[in-house]
Amino acid sequence: MDSVMAHFRAGSKVVTVRAPNVLECPSMQATTSSRSSAPRRKASPYPLDRELVNDLVAANRTLARLGVLDAFGHISVRDPRQPHRYLISRSIAPETINAADILLLDLDSQTVDPRDEGTLLYRERFIHGEIYKARPDVSAVVHSHSPTVVPFTVTRAKLRPLLHNAGFLGLGVPLFEIRKHAGNGTDLMILTPNLGKDLAKKLGKDAAVVLMRGHGDSVVGPSLPNAVFRAYYTEINARQQLAAITIGGPTNFMTHAEALTSNQAMLNASARPWALWRKRALAER
Amino acid sequence: MDSVMAHFRAGSKVVTVRAPNVLECPSMQATTSSRSSAPRRKASPYPLDRELVNDLVAANRTLARLGVLDAFGHISVRDPRQPHRYLISRSIAPETINAADILLLDLDSQTVDPRDEGTLLYRERFIHGEIYKARPDVSAVVHSHSPTVVPFTVTRAKLRPLLHNAGFLGLGVPLFEIRKHAGNGTDLMILTPNLGKDLAKKLGKDAAVVLMRGHGDSVVGPSLPNAVFRAYYTEINARQQLAAITIGGPTNFMTHAEALTSNQAMLNASARPWALWRKRALAER
Amino acid sequence: MDSVMAHFRAGSKVVTVRAPNVLECPSMQATTSSRSSAPRRKASPYPLDRELVNDLVAANRTLARLGVLDAFGHISVRDPRQPHRYLISRSIAPETINAADILLLDLDSQTVDPRDEGTLLYRERFIHGEIYKARPDVSAVVHSHSPTVVPFTVTRAKLRPLLHNAGFLGLGVPLFEIRKHAGNGTDLMILTPNLGKDLAKKLGKDAAVVLMRGHGDSVVGPSLPNAVFRAYYTEINARQQLAAITIGGPTNFMTHAEALTSNQAMLNASARPWALWRKRALAER
Amino acid sequence: MDSVMAHFRAGSKVVTVRAPNVLECPSMQATTSSRSSAPRRKASPYPLDRELVNDLVAANRTLARLGVLDAFGHISVRDPRQPHRYLISRSIAPETINAADILLLDLDSQTVDPRDEGTLLYRERFIHGEIYKARPDVSAVVHSHSPTVVPFTVTRAKLRPLLHNAGFLGLGVPLFEIRKHAGNGTDLMILTPNLGKDLAKKLGKDAAVVLMRGHGDSVVGPSLPNAVFRAYYTEINARQQLAAITIGGPTNFMTHAEALTSNQAMLNASARPWALWRKRALAER
Repeated sequence: MDSVMAHFRAGSKVVTVRAPNVLECPSMQATTSSRSSAPRRKASPYPLDRELVNDLVAANRTLARLGVLDAFGHISVRDPRQPHRYLISRSIAPETINAADILLLDLDSQTVDPRDEGTLLYRERFIHGEIYKARPDVSAVVHSHSPTVVPFTVTRAKLRPLLHNAGFLGLGVPLFEIRKHAGNGTDLMILTPNLGKDLAKKLGKDAAVVLMRGHGDSVVGPSLPNAVFRAYYTEINARQQLAAITIGGPTNFMTHAEALTSNQAMLNASARPWALWRKRALAER
Repeated sequence: MDSVMAHFRAGSKVVTVRAPNVLECPSMQATTSSRSSAPRRKASPYPLDRELVNDLVAANRTLARLGVLDAFGHISVRDPRQPHRYLISRSIAPETINAADILLLDLDSQTVDPRDEGTLLYRERFIHGEIYKARPDVSAVVHSHSPTVVPFTVTRAKLRPLLHNAGFLGLGVPLFEIRKHAGNGTDLMILTPNLGKDLAKKLGKDAAVVLMRGHGDSVVGPSLPNAVFRAYYTEINARQQLAAITIGGPTNFMTHAEALTSNQAMLNASARPWALWRKRALAER
Repeated sequence: MDSVMAHFRAGSKVVTVRAPNVLECPSMQATTSSRSSAPRRKASPYPLDRELVNDLVAANRTLARLGVLDAFGHISVRDPRQPHRYLISRSIAPETINAADILLLDLDSQTVDPRDEGTLLYRERFIHGEIYKARPDVSAVVHSHSPTVVPFTVTRAKLRPLLHNAGFLGLGVPLFEIRKHAGNGTDLMILTPNLGKDLAKKLGKDAAVVLMRGHGDSVVGPSLPNAVFRAYYTEINARQQLAAITIGGPTNFMTHAEALTSNQAMLNASARPWALWRKRALAER
Repeated sequence: MDSVMAHFRAGSKVVTVRAPNVLECPSMQATTSSRSSAPRRKASPYPLDRELVNDLVAANRTLARLGVLDAFGHISVRDPRQPHRYLISRSIAPETINAADILLLDLDSQTVDPRDEGTLLYRERFIHGEIYKARPDVSAVVHSHSPTVVPFTVTRAKLRPLLHNAGFLGLGVPLFEIRKHAGNGTDLMILTPNLGKDLAKKLGKDAAVVLMRGHGDSVVGPSLPNAVFRAYYTEINARQQLAAITIGGPTNFMTHAEALTSNQAMLNASARPWALWRKRALAER
């Protein structure tokens, strides 16, 4: 759905209502919000790439629909034209994000466009900025409370790749224990640039995923589709590893070589689910 | 995308109302649809706050959609203008509740408006009234058969916070064993004011959640959005604790200080999912 | 949806198409089939009670939506006006059933209306007829492959009531092992009147549920809403008992007296979910 | 209830077709929607059977909806008029497949119609071609990452039939360990005709299912509905076996004779779910 119009099905025709006629209604506004504000963006001194914005909207809605993101969590994408900046939504629930909610931040996680001043930002946005600083190879970051990953952050079992789609877990799955960095009494959130730096350091130079104790994970990728793919299959691998633990006995994990080969193959193969996911997400309200 | 027309079932015919007649907005009017009785409420000597009523409708539909409430369970909210009274639905399944179903009860859980006499009330409504009496800090109560919480009411494992969103569990999770209060042969239901008082006493002065053996739980909060948030994350924490038990070995639960800090943080943070949940719920049916 | 008409939403009006106009289309037929054949039923020497037929349609769709029935399984209801006969669908998947699919069988599970001769019947319909013969107190029977009940039919754990809604399990949960009745090489199905009699005997005079090894269960009730309620909460109790086993240690099951009291209470309380389920099911296509 | 109009997205505009133009039936036309290319097929020297194409579309959408297929996986059906060829989609996600995506391949898994040259094919299509070569009795193949089957490919538990619908598992459930055929460093995929042959050999002459370590399974059947049925009940049996393991103690699996009898019975019985699944799938989108 691309137009600023709302289309209603009628018995024998499509009724098209122009946006000005439907703005009295909150639910319609959700549908049309990105459009009503599109003009504002166009006039911005920091115009955003429309397709990249749509990608980011689709990524948020997709991981919400797939159950990786709940009402919290956030996804960002580095701006390929200005790699010292990244796109991320203002602070709202992922499944409700529209194009007009997408903002441009610098790597200190501050807004760039003066007109965005005062907009409510994700409090944990430093996760994104600090990872982009530390990892030039990273183009997208997903932070989530992935439900079956959380139990692996509070137990001694190591999350390891057993499903071939999850070979990227073979790059290492470090665990960030916030107590070591901020003491015994935090709310487990990454609320400062320094904690963001600590998290990025724990992620290291190679890993695709860093677990966050009692909290969730942060997943990175060389592209947005790949980061979304990895966030999803981290959850799936966790579910299957949990089932393997239930079955009992030794688990035949992937070898390191298999994991690396598979990770390479999936850099391209993630295009197939992405095509499906993006189309479906952008067709939603 | 729905029609701009609203269709109501009314007995055996479909009533079609044109948009201009329905508050400019199909989704809002969906909320007020069974408001054939709305006029009645307006003329009431005990008019209810419209936004609070919509909040309560949204809370019911949301926790039904999220799987915390089944066809049973109920939610109430204290009336901030008259704290000795609370709002709750008449006795119907949560996901079917509309604004016209919301009633005003006093803290003895009796109807206030004479015209509500004879309306079928939840038999366990004393849970709500007695908790409001005992806990002036409580503004909302959720009683549910939360599916993954029930197993923790019949086993010796203690439900404890491991997910940072569930820090409120660190305030204590007492277990109400009805056998100690009403003997060995009840149907486990809180059917009298006295049992309501016993339950409120077991909840105590600090806890946010009281487990009810073989039955479910009752969750309280300083606001309706916060109580809904807590009811949801009690279920999520139970699922994740179950997974941690499956994985085995010691579980790295939150420290008491972490739980308290997190609980404080979530008093505000529950606004984000609430915005999403309320909007979505009121756009339904 | 009650009429023989199909209603489409239009921008400003409801377009109503008479059935003869929409019969070219298989998917529309599904919607309108019960109506196209309504005239036939009216002229039948064995007219069915319209509300009872709708109840049975709603029961099938509901248990399919709730995941108790898959594409197999069947539900019947005794005809209160002629207790030696019962209503059941012809042999199709439960979620696709419409009013026109409902047939009248005698207690030998044979069709009554000569015009139904040759209609494909459920092969296991003897489950229903033989239970009605053996249990005059039973008004409805649900046979399903309830997914979490099946594991309890092939292991030594006894399914027992832990959730107050499932007190009826306290009436006993016998296990039917078909090998004892038909040897080691059957397909586990109840394909003959004699096997139906054996199953009814295993159910006994009191139980509400009989487990069928490697197959599922059959659930009975004094009313259709109650049988649907029991079939659903048998599945829920099985899920919660599985979780309790995962948690480990002794499980605090209901006492026998609690189970009986609860069972009595739920005979009435099953009206609440039924009102929700029926309305929702009949609003579906 | 949908409009009687059909709306197609075509690049940037919505094309609306009146019902009389679309085969009298919105749902059928939904199936053929991306049939901008249908005319092309009609003129093909290798015209495909329209009903078989619709069957294959329905099979893909059904197993995606049932959670057996994720964005990966593929289904094929042997062409009964030319058994040395088979139908399969081009390389896209199963739930998005339309009739125009279906291609004809020979048993070396190469395209037949010169106009299909350059179309992106599933990289693992050799699974299908090589199984058809080795097993003349096989008419359809499903390859999936069936989520609860994967854990059984990396543990020592043997997947065995416990649910009567899954009697076909009694024909044997061999495990394909790719390390034995292609070494320690593959991405676990069947990317060559030789690996396809090895997999077909491991499947053997009798089995209906071959497990693929860390990857999923391939399921075959004498008909497409039966192969879809088997793929679904392999997943269901795996879930129930996992639950039986959780319950603990010995599991009362089907005897070999029961499994064989059940398998025979289900060759016909799979028609019932297929009727439901096909109708529902073709009514989508």
